[in-house]
Amino acid sequence: MTTISKTSILRKKLESQSTVKVGGAFDAMSAKLVEIHGFDAVWAGSFAISATHAVPDASILTMTEFFDAAFNMTETCKIPVIADCDTGYGGPSNVSHMVKKYENAGIAAICIEDKMFPKQNSLLQNGRNDLISEKEFVAKIIAGKDAKQDKNFMIIARVEALISGAGMDEAIKRATAYEKAGADAILIHSKKKTPEEIFQFADLWKGNLPIVIVPTTYDSVKLDEIISHKIKMVIYANQTLRAAHASMSNVLKQIINSNSLSEITEKISSMEDIFNLQAMYDIKTKEKELEDELKKLGYIN
Amino acid sequence: MTTISKTSILRKKLESQSTVKVGGAFDAMSAKLVEIHGFDAVWAGSFAISATHAVPDASILTMTEFFDAAFNMTETCKIPVIADCDTGYGGPSNVSHMVKKYENAGIAAICIEDKMFPKQNSLLQNGRNDLISEKEFVAKIIAGKDAKQDKNFMIIARVEALISGAGMDEAIKRATAYEKAGADAILIHSKKKTPEEIFQFADLWKGNLPIVIVPTTYDSVKLDEIISHKIKMVIYANQTLRAAHASMSNVLKQIINSNSLSEITEKISSMEDIFNLQAMYDIKTKEKELEDELKKLGYIN
Amino acid sequence: MTTISKTSILRKKLESQSTVKVGGAFDAMSAKLVEIHGFDAVWAGSFAISATHAVPDASILTMTEFFDAAFNMTETCKIPVIADCDTGYGGPSNVSHMVKKYENAGIAAICIEDKMFPKQNSLLQNGRNDLISEKEFVAKIIAGKDAKQDKNFMIIARVEALISGAGMDEAIKRATAYEKAGADAILIHSKKKTPEEIFQFADLWKGNLPIVIVPTTYDSVKLDEIISHKIKMVIYANQTLRAAHASMSNVLKQIINSNSLSEITEKISSMEDIFNLQAMYDIKTKEKELEDELKKLGYIN
Amino acid sequence: MTTISKTSILRKKLESQSTVKVGGAFDAMSAKLVEIHGFDAVWAGSFAISATHAVPDASILTMTEFFDAAFNMTETCKIPVIADCDTGYGGPSNVSHMVKKYENAGIAAICIEDKMFPKQNSLLQNGRNDLISEKEFVAKIIAGKDAKQDKNFMIIARVEALISGAGMDEAIKRATAYEKAGADAILIHSKKKTPEEIFQFADLWKGNLPIVIVPTTYDSVKLDEIISHKIKMVIYANQTLRAAHASMSNVLKQIINSNSLSEITEKISSMEDIFNLQAMYDIKTKEKELEDELKKLGYIN
Repeated sequence: MTTISKTSILRKKLESQSTVKVGGAFDAMSAKLVEIHGFDAVWAGSFAISATHAVPDASILTMTEFFDAAFNMTETCKIPVIADCDTGYGGPSNVSHMVKKYENAGIAAICIEDKMFPKQNSLLQNGRNDLISEKEFVAKIIAGKDAKQDKNFMIIARVEALISGAGMDEAIKRATAYEKAGADAILIHSKKKTPEEIFQFADLWKGNLPIVIVPTTYDSVKLDEIISHKIKMVIYANQTLRAAHASMSNVLKQIINSNSLSEITEKISSMEDIFNLQAMYDIKTKEKELEDELKKLGYIN
Repeated sequence: MTTISKTSILRKKLESQSTVKVGGAFDAMSAKLVEIHGFDAVWAGSFAISATHAVPDASILTMTEFFDAAFNMTETCKIPVIADCDTGYGGPSNVSHMVKKYENAGIAAICIEDKMFPKQNSLLQNGRNDLISEKEFVAKIIAGKDAKQDKNFMIIARVEALISGAGMDEAIKRATAYEKAGADAILIHSKKKTPEEIFQFADLWKGNLPIVIVPTTYDSVKLDEIISHKIKMVIYANQTLRAAHASMSNVLKQIINSNSLSEITEKISSMEDIFNLQAMYDIKTKEKELEDELKKLGYIN
Repeated sequence: MTTISKTSILRKKLESQSTVKVGGAFDAMSAKLVEIHGFDAVWAGSFAISATHAVPDASILTMTEFFDAAFNMTETCKIPVIADCDTGYGGPSNVSHMVKKYENAGIAAICIEDKMFPKQNSLLQNGRNDLISEKEFVAKIIAGKDAKQDKNFMIIARVEALISGAGMDEAIKRATAYEKAGADAILIHSKKKTPEEIFQFADLWKGNLPIVIVPTTYDSVKLDEIISHKIKMVIYANQTLRAAHASMSNVLKQIINSNSLSEITEKISSMEDIFNLQAMYDIKTKEKELEDELKKLGYIN
Repeated sequence: MTTISKTSILRKKLESQSTVKVGGAFDAMSAKLVEIHGFDAVWAGSFAISATHAVPDASILTMTEFFDAAFNMTETCKIPVIADCDTGYGGPSNVSHMVKKYENAGIAAICIEDKMFPKQNSLLQNGRNDLISEKEFVAKIIAGKDAKQDKNFMIIARVEALISGAGMDEAIKRATAYEKAGADAILIHSKKKTPEEIFQFADLWKGNLPIVIVPTTYDSVKLDEIISHKIKMVIYANQTLRAAHASMSNVLKQIINSNSLSEITEKISSMEDIFNLQAMYDIKTKEKELEDELKKLGYIN
């Protein structure tokens, strides 16, 4: 039930909006904040989830650990959750198993990329970015597509050709092949400081699938440019994580160096803000309602 | 091995330092930041862990979920982790099971409080703060003490008498009883805006155990006052969480309202800062070392 | 989607069949065997799950651990899974949280009992079997009912009055109260060697809910008697566990005492039997299908 | 502490006994039965653990799921647990992460094999058994060795050359290379119906590491032959699983076809047998002890 509505919500937004904005999260609280601030969907990103586990973004965490994080998010949020599934955690059999598991859990979409397992973060200096063959990745897409039960569940195919240095022609060729194999969207990734190669891809590619981007390095790209190049989804993948890291570092530095918490200048939310986020007062409301029902039943005078 | 050293590290700090400073965390990254900024130990707090799961701090998460968070922290950190274990997740049998599990996992100390299960956050307006009887809580402490295998593993008994309105005499009486039962430290909790009742407790109580405080509401308390009242441990339980909540809220609000990420003014850490925290470059270093070893063995020319 | 069908399957069986037969399981394999052998539903029993974790059946495992076992079963089986949820893992707030979690996960029904938390197994010699008040248990049922989103999801209220020695009148009174509060079925439990008190209850009680029994101690009770007393569901809760325990004990004893595995007389299934259960050959079938699709797309000649 | 003793127990047994007998398990109960019946160690086997999750033995479960099973076993047992870690769940970085995690958790040894990831069960008809290069597997062994902190923790290198059809020379060559790289034992696997090729390997190989075998297919091999060929460890990997599968199938078939549980002829253990395994009465003993302590403290008259 949940599954159906969240997958169709995402599909409808992609059809009806000029651009779908997706906010990155790594746990249920950050996901809830993404929802509260008006984003269309949540990105359960591997980089951020790995960072909050303090392990490298290099296929070190398992599917189970990434799944648990995404599952917590989808239990918490009304908006759809898109799970970053790295290389798919193995071959076609693993992708098949994974798609069933994620779909059953109410996650709206998964994203897999065409790099070699174990992978390394695409933005790492001197990182390893070898691609698997087009055929191997097409096999994963087919396995994923065949495992879907809800046609609205989306498999986003992430093209790493520009990251790996394989070039624009290879990126176009692969995007076309992935669409033919049954992908539901194409994420074209880039580590350039400016969006030119992304726009070039968007203009050259003749496919019909929505194009998705993650403007981490080319952060000056403007929303109206994105729309004018017919890019349908923008993922702000890691800014929440990086804001949390910065503010926690600051507040800890101030605490360790000060004589009193009241000297701290780093902005922190109030206890009440947190109570609201975690719906503490719902418990009090429900206790009241329960009391009323128990009164009606004669257990309380 | 790990267990022994972390429990003895905590004991030695309590003996040798005027005050032990403990920083609150909710996942491995926040715990690592607590360590990096020079705190003596990490507090794996239930309030913060519940908040990051977006559920009320009201005994909703299970021991398993709290344990997993604390276990991730202790796998990541060299400094000791103190796990907030609420009411002990049941009766004496549960505390016994819990102490074995946490000690085996390398956690240095646990803290249990004398409130009724299921509990509600002590700082909640109109929250439920009923105490269990002294006898029942003493039974939990004995069960925990008997389950310890490493004498340095600490059981911190949290006295909620001041929170519940039972008064100072009851607080003193209980702290004394908990020491006699085998507790290793007394956490005296208060929701007053000023530290008077905490100081009064510290001055009146004639026990020999270290006194622990959590100055969330009386945040103007000064470190030198704390030391002069012979309070041995200060837990800054939730400032990291509240800083993360504030900064993520801000950055998300800015992103959703701006045309470009480069317009964002909220401070965010760089990708490199995060790579460093998660030790991404260690992988590159190890790859290099491995290459050297493979060369020596003749596998690479 | 899954949720809807499995909850309605269970409801329909209760309406259309003289008796619904439920087989006890503790992991996905035992659940799959329950399905293969023609049972109507799977019982994810706390006693059996605790036993396979080698811990006492005394509220030692957490909801998370019981949930994970039940979730594995429902991911594996087409027939409905009924989760034994002991006392509901806390108060009304916990039951509310639990019902949402289990319903979302595709589990068809949960069962909670009116004993004090932490509980002990009802069949334990000299076990503790104190009841909570009717009011307190009614509060849990209401909280559970209000948390349901799918009306077909079932909350089975387990009456422990006969176990605790509170007597038949109390059992009847409580069953009536639990129906009024919104329970979907009544499990009446007994530790007698014969079914007389169960039949007496079934004959005396004037409620409209299906009656459920667990004939562990009164194992001579006959199916036609059960049907003639209008008992709608029989749970064979722990025979799989006890068969597994017996046969594993035997085979291990034989192995340790013999010179060769071929001397073992304890019956063991073939590797092929296990491969079939775990659908090993599906992987080979899917590999073949994938090859065909890759051929069509021109990747393989 | 636990870690040190279990790893050294295993080392000492390998040095002092003619052969070390290891029993296969898939959960804490089966592990406990292995211990009770006098085996030297427990094998946390991937095939059996996959089967109890009802998924193919084909790298479908993640390291987390295998780890959780092995961790439950080592929490339960006094004897050492050896974890079957398939191909190591990735490359050298993953093996490094894994060794730290397993060693910290008190597991005594891990076993990795030189097949391609994702792997398929070695005994599957027409299964895929491609080897990775010697160099790649040597790299995994080095990474594992460098991650060890306790020198007694064992890395067992499983040679699949005979399974894959690469032949005896390749098996010998690889075993030699794996010893040189730092492995602590060599598991030589075979799917032949008779032990000839295993004996041939044992006689030909000139290494100094203990040889380990898994006589699933060549089940007529005799213990005295094994000893005479200087094979130091025998793993009875899956007989517990297969016994449990057979007996549960039988008991379920009998229940579904009979009028009463008392007609069942399949042997099942008593409730008391299970209570003993899960130490139910320890809780009663501890309750008594606690009562005594509370009396001494004056809380009970």
